[in-house]
Amino acid sequence: MKKVSLGAKTLVFPLPVWCVGTYDKNGKPNVMTVAWGGICSSVPPSIAVSVRKSRYTYDNLMAHKAFTINVPSVEHAAVTDYFGMVSGKHVDKFAETGLTPVPGDRVHAPYIGEFPMVLECKVTHVHDIGGHIQFVGEILDVKTDENMIGENGLPDIERIQPIVFGPEIRQYRRVGELIGEAFAIGKDSGQRKKD
Amino acid sequence: MKKVSLGAKTLVFPLPVWCVGTYDKNGKPNVMTVAWGGICSSVPPSIAVSVRKSRYTYDNLMAHKAFTINVPSVEHAAVTDYFGMVSGKHVDKFAETGLTPVPGDRVHAPYIGEFPMVLECKVTHVHDIGGHIQFVGEILDVKTDENMIGENGLPDIERIQPIVFGPEIRQYRRVGELIGEAFAIGKDSGQRKKD
Repeated sequence: MKKVSLGAKTLVFPLPVWCVGTYDKNGKPNVMTVAWGGICSSVPPSIAVSVRKSRYTYDNLMAHKAFTINVPSVEHAAVTDYFGMVSGKHVDKFAETGLTPVPGDRVHAPYIGEFPMVLECKVTHVHDIGGHIQFVGEILDVKTDENMIGENGLPDIERIQPIVFGPEIRQYRRVGELIGEAFAIGKDSGQRKKD
Repeated sequence: MKKVSLGAKTLVFPLPVWCVGTYDKNGKPNVMTVAWGGICSSVPPSIAVSVRKSRYTYDNLMAHKAFTINVPSVEHAAVTDYFGMVSGKHVDKFAETGLTPVPGDRVHAPYIGEFPMVLECKVTHVHDIGGHIQFVGEILDVKTDENMIGENGLPDIERIQPIVFGPEIRQYRRVGELIGEAFAIGKDSGQRKKD
């Protein structure tokens, strides 16, 4: 199949949708939605999020070197979208949405009480990458609601119902059906040349 | 709902599944599967992937400062899993799987001809983050198969069928149903306090 060139753009699937929780210099909790981010190291466990310097969250991150990653569920899609459209400079996003800022117990950053999965992170690296500043955070703790834990003791992705983002197409989508087990379904794929 | 602490780990949903294409020093094409990565800047459009120093791909990235991001479709889940389990030090992964290495036309890196979406990237930053080295690549071009383009001229995520990864739970999953439009569905969420 012939490939079509679409040019130089931030277009790739799938991307995450996460909300970054911080305090401002006066202690007001804020939250901002990001899709520019991902896990970036296993040891220490670390996650990166990119933020423009003009964002309220940028000043908060620089002041406290701490943040939370809040994983929204499908039921939080509208507030998550809202958190990406308005600035904490002008509004108190927690007050406006009625969501609950809970003080982190490992870092000086608030998490969203109603969201099903939360990471508490300490900033370890700050990288200037053109228009965005990338903050790398060491993950000090992962928290999830008791009722999101499956029988295997791990978070159940079908209960959490995280949201996938499609850039350019501007779509929020559900995580769908199980395809297979990682580090397992590919075991025999190295023999295809012999078919 | 009370939150349960799960400790310090790389556990967050959703994560992507991408294959990183590189050439080795002898020009042999290689590909490795990653979930530790994400978009990290809009200007210039940039994507980050993290790789351990012990990986074959690490030497290739350092040698040529170029890579491709290959987005697998659900039908490629098994070979994608395989690409994460074996090393190019020992096998020719393209030959073993029968997939086609196509030379990039913007960078010195191969892409997988059969995968529906491909990014060509030039390494612009190399960040040492503990156990992983993070490579930031400027996206020079995005390519997709002609039949993956929807009526709006953009890639159709339902045709591409990218794969979502759940770490710790070791699951590959489909991207599911549309929830709503980004930068739109949250417009009225700032009024909830008045309810």
